[in-house]
Amino acid sequence: MSSFKITFMPDNVVADASSGETIIDVANRANLHINASCGGAGVCGRCRVVLAGGEVESEPGVYLSSEEYGQGVRLACLSYVVGNATINIPPESRADATVYATAQAEEETSVETLDPMAKDIEVELTAPSAADNLGDYDRLMASLTTAHGLENPEMELAALLEMPEALRDGDFSAWVTLFEDPTRPGRKVIGIRSAKAPKQVYALAVDIGTTTVWGRLVNLETGESRHSHGDLNGQISFGEDVISRIVFAAKGDGLARLKDKVIANINNLIDLMEKDVPGCRESLALVVTAGNTTMSHLLTGLNPKSIRLSPYVPAAADWPVLKAADLGIKVKGSVPLLIYPSVSSYVGGDIVAGVLASGLYQRPELTLFIDVGTNGEIVVGNQDWMTCAACSAGPAFEGGGVKFGMRAAPGAIDQFYFDPVTRTHRLTTIGEEKAIGICGSGLINIVAELFMAGVLDPQGKYVKEKAPELIRDDEDGQEYVLCPAAETGIDRDIVLTEIDVDNLIRAKGAMYSGYQTLLESVGLTMGDLEKVIIGGGFGKSLNLRNAITIGLLPELPVEKFSYIGNSSLTGATLAALSGSLWQKAGEIKANMTNFELSETPGYMDYYMASQFLPHTRSDLFPETMAARAKGAGK
Amino acid sequence: MSSFKITFMPDNVVADASSGETIIDVANRANLHINASCGGAGVCGRCRVVLAGGEVESEPGVYLSSEEYGQGVRLACLSYVVGNATINIPPESRADATVYATAQAEEETSVETLDPMAKDIEVELTAPSAADNLGDYDRLMASLTTAHGLENPEMELAALLEMPEALRDGDFSAWVTLFEDPTRPGRKVIGIRSAKAPKQVYALAVDIGTTTVWGRLVNLETGESRHSHGDLNGQISFGEDVISRIVFAAKGDGLARLKDKVIANINNLIDLMEKDVPGCRESLALVVTAGNTTMSHLLTGLNPKSIRLSPYVPAAADWPVLKAADLGIKVKGSVPLLIYPSVSSYVGGDIVAGVLASGLYQRPELTLFIDVGTNGEIVVGNQDWMTCAACSAGPAFEGGGVKFGMRAAPGAIDQFYFDPVTRTHRLTTIGEEKAIGICGSGLINIVAELFMAGVLDPQGKYVKEKAPELIRDDEDGQEYVLCPAAETGIDRDIVLTEIDVDNLIRAKGAMYSGYQTLLESVGLTMGDLEKVIIGGGFGKSLNLRNAITIGLLPELPVEKFSYIGNSSLTGATLAALSGSLWQKAGEIKANMTNFELSETPGYMDYYMASQFLPHTRSDLFPETMAARAKGAGK
Repeated sequence: MSSFKITFMPDNVVADASSGETIIDVANRANLHINASCGGAGVCGRCRVVLAGGEVESEPGVYLSSEEYGQGVRLACLSYVVGNATINIPPESRADATVYATAQAEEETSVETLDPMAKDIEVELTAPSAADNLGDYDRLMASLTTAHGLENPEMELAALLEMPEALRDGDFSAWVTLFEDPTRPGRKVIGIRSAKAPKQVYALAVDIGTTTVWGRLVNLETGESRHSHGDLNGQISFGEDVISRIVFAAKGDGLARLKDKVIANINNLIDLMEKDVPGCRESLALVVTAGNTTMSHLLTGLNPKSIRLSPYVPAAADWPVLKAADLGIKVKGSVPLLIYPSVSSYVGGDIVAGVLASGLYQRPELTLFIDVGTNGEIVVGNQDWMTCAACSAGPAFEGGGVKFGMRAAPGAIDQFYFDPVTRTHRLTTIGEEKAIGICGSGLINIVAELFMAGVLDPQGKYVKEKAPELIRDDEDGQEYVLCPAAETGIDRDIVLTEIDVDNLIRAKGAMYSGYQTLLESVGLTMGDLEKVIIGGGFGKSLNLRNAITIGLLPELPVEKFSYIGNSSLTGATLAALSGSLWQKAGEIKANMTNFELSETPGYMDYYMASQFLPHTRSDLFPETMAARAKGAGK
Repeated sequence: MSSFKITFMPDNVVADASSGETIIDVANRANLHINASCGGAGVCGRCRVVLAGGEVESEPGVYLSSEEYGQGVRLACLSYVVGNATINIPPESRADATVYATAQAEEETSVETLDPMAKDIEVELTAPSAADNLGDYDRLMASLTTAHGLENPEMELAALLEMPEALRDGDFSAWVTLFEDPTRPGRKVIGIRSAKAPKQVYALAVDIGTTTVWGRLVNLETGESRHSHGDLNGQISFGEDVISRIVFAAKGDGLARLKDKVIANINNLIDLMEKDVPGCRESLALVVTAGNTTMSHLLTGLNPKSIRLSPYVPAAADWPVLKAADLGIKVKGSVPLLIYPSVSSYVGGDIVAGVLASGLYQRPELTLFIDVGTNGEIVVGNQDWMTCAACSAGPAFEGGGVKFGMRAAPGAIDQFYFDPVTRTHRLTTIGEEKAIGICGSGLINIVAELFMAGVLDPQGKYVKEKAPELIRDDEDGQEYVLCPAAETGIDRDIVLTEIDVDNLIRAKGAMYSGYQTLLESVGLTMGDLEKVIIGGGFGKSLNLRNAITIGLLPELPVEKFSYIGNSSLTGATLAALSGSLWQKAGEIKANMTNFELSETPGYMDYYMASQFLPHTRSDLFPETMAARAKGAGK
């Protein structure tokens, strides 16, 4: 078989390929994950790519119009390598890992200047003698003052204890790790290593999500990421959302237990990183965390109870510089811990980190930044101003309040496509296990498909004649059978009820009316938006078209949207790499105007008007309505 | 019985007394302890006091000449209350606790301005509301910045964690405990308490001696001492002197074990203080320690091995500000720990603290400050300059290198008096137990008495005919029987050999030649000394006249001498009470010129000349020699 080069855009990744391989397989091998809900059977239409150059041999498949085919659109699973080619992967076809990899790539390139708060300097001392018998510490301090211009730096115990050996091993030359908080005068000596040892300083960036905790190890000398890893937040067994965690924290030793869980998460991350990068634990000089306001409280053991008591103030929105070891994180006692500042009780450090990662704060374009979740956060602004709000969308996006709802975990129905011809559907589950429920992104996909096919009407009610075999009455209206009991892993029919759909409509409406309210507060409308950035963990699995279809995202040209994956982790990484970006994060927090939507005039009206698929005002979703008219009429 | 007032000078303590009571009992009741080695039998002559006014009824006793009696000298144990009286207690009659109490009294009065590094300020915040929903931390920081002029203070985790409750309990008014290191910009918030709680801030001053660890609790609001307590340094079982500790630290987990012991000492002190002053542990805001260079290393867990390896530099002479809890001291995690700076490997923080306590650094008089011990430290100077040296006196002062030598502990012979008429002696032991050995001060007292009686000649050899019943031959010369086996607690004759005496002569000679060398280095002689201050733990039990007699102290008028008791603890207390005095301590360390005696020309000559009782040059001890000529001729 001949070998060809397939170039994937926009990542500009070139992969070797043999003739006859599918494009989706080549992309997978190159670590570019394309949505392929049907596992490559050519029937879900989720793996649309655009042939931008060269050639592939393709079957059109049922989901491509001849017009689209003419424009170069192909299904990656039905396209075979026949020569060199350039393939464009549009955002809506990217699966989790793709988006995540993109976020990583963005992060690698977005630090223009590597100016970490922790860094090594080389110090060369005169060795002591009978005539010059200064103590080691005194000698080092004298050199730092005179030769390095540091006025009376503080020194941490851990550094003090490693000083004598380090100095002698290096013949009185040493790497001195300094920490500088750009918001305060003075520096701290946090580590001392022999000059014979490699110059090696790492930082750990952590995104503490309510559901998952992600960590990334970064080399502060080179700026490169060495390891990243995610895991379910260990607090999950004590409650799935922040409110239930706050309630749990108030009981007995609940606060300590929650704190212990997240600290265990972080220690586990470091254990894994140490395996991958031996010695990184000892070389760790900085930890930066980003999380929502409640997660940051629980990390430090600070009781978050005031967050849910009027007037809903957190114990801390901004945070002092702490020591990671003081919280139980198993690193050297001197390692500083920076916690991303929150804007308010419900717009947390993860959002500030996300805004930093998104670049919103430094661009002229009017940008909407959103993080979809039980607590959805919205930022509208540009380089000149920023407003933000949290909207209590309810748990539908995380599978809550939905009869068969569940978190995005193996067995969750995530992809769904309805065939209007056969009036049946196909679906896939996470991990390709037997279905046991519906995750948030699955819910959006199902409702969008059913709505586009006319199976759901704009009020979220089922139109029985559109799928007579699958729609049946239940006690509160009708329900749609997604999976008969025999095919599930739970021995029950998995259905989607009209109440479930209502809950989703309420959730997406809360988000959409939030965008409208924030825009209105500055005299703008949806049409003024120049960019929409989707951050946060949930965003990774969001299908762009379907999210627009249900009215969760505004109907705007696709090119205005971008996913930035785990923007909280990216923001934490950026701060780890750059003291000036950390300062910038503080400015973002300080400059962001927080709106309490429930107290903002107009929000309730917007909210009421949003309780439709996609919206009461169909003029806001003209293309969606037109496409539906075409599809639903089939 | 009538009641009278007895006034004790120089303490100016007035005690009620009944007629017929002995002066020594009245003094004891007033917590002024007068030496009374013989337990008040009127035979040791150690309880000399001076009747300065009023009257007492006295028996002259065998130790007072009629001339002395005419000058008002009385034995306190043989003087009975008959009316009001004023009694002067000379320094040589003060026993341990007296000197200690004096040191305490001095310390109480010597802080002219109470300006502790840790203090409470009252902060009044606006309570949060829907319109003003700053987080607690943000709110507090804003107030500290705007209302209290503190620029971006750091906050310790412990303070952060107590903040929300404290603010709410106090209706958003709170005591905020701030720590300010006078040598660095910025302040740290180390504690937050409800404004409804009492304003209460304590500090712990600790003297870490090689043999004993003393602590004192001081109230930083009032400056008063609340509790002081001493205990044997738990490291003692791993070696009695610093060198053996350094050796032990180098073996296996020796360093950690030594550290644990001294930390346990400090924790025990705090436990005792907490019983005495409930709540003091939680209100502790500062720990200041003073110890010799090795003790400071062991406190922090820093290996002191370089101290005894050429070129004899410590790992740290100066110290960074550490956290007490980081070392295992059971106080709040935020409590700063300040360690007194050393001058060199052998002139430690205890000496810098002692110099601060002595006031030497701020007076015009040429002053000799000494701390007698295995490692004897000497400071000569005044407000304009200071020189110091350590001299390796050997362990004789601590009972080492002496056949029956022991530490000052129950059963140690401490007081001794020789009756030239009967050619017998009387002696007392610590705790009035059966004799088991001879402590350092006992050794000095015995040698001085025997020398003055002519039983020892200036070369330190016994003159058999002066005490024929008690002097006998041994394998290396002669020995003096202090206690026959039947009267001891060890079933052996306790003797003092000529080798023991030689060791003491070497030890005192090392000290004396040190004074001479330091004085010579600045072109002065012993006669120029205007003041001699005896600090340190051993000084407390030193008999002034006997110390002069053997040539340990220079022969100068008694009024030039003063004891300041545990000067290291006093210095630590002063620093706890005053940031400017702590800064002064740093200046003392920086301005003190350290002499390595072994490398200083002339020292060996002075040393050789000192190997006599009291000295080869009898012109340096004219009165001693004259008195001896009179006594030894009896």
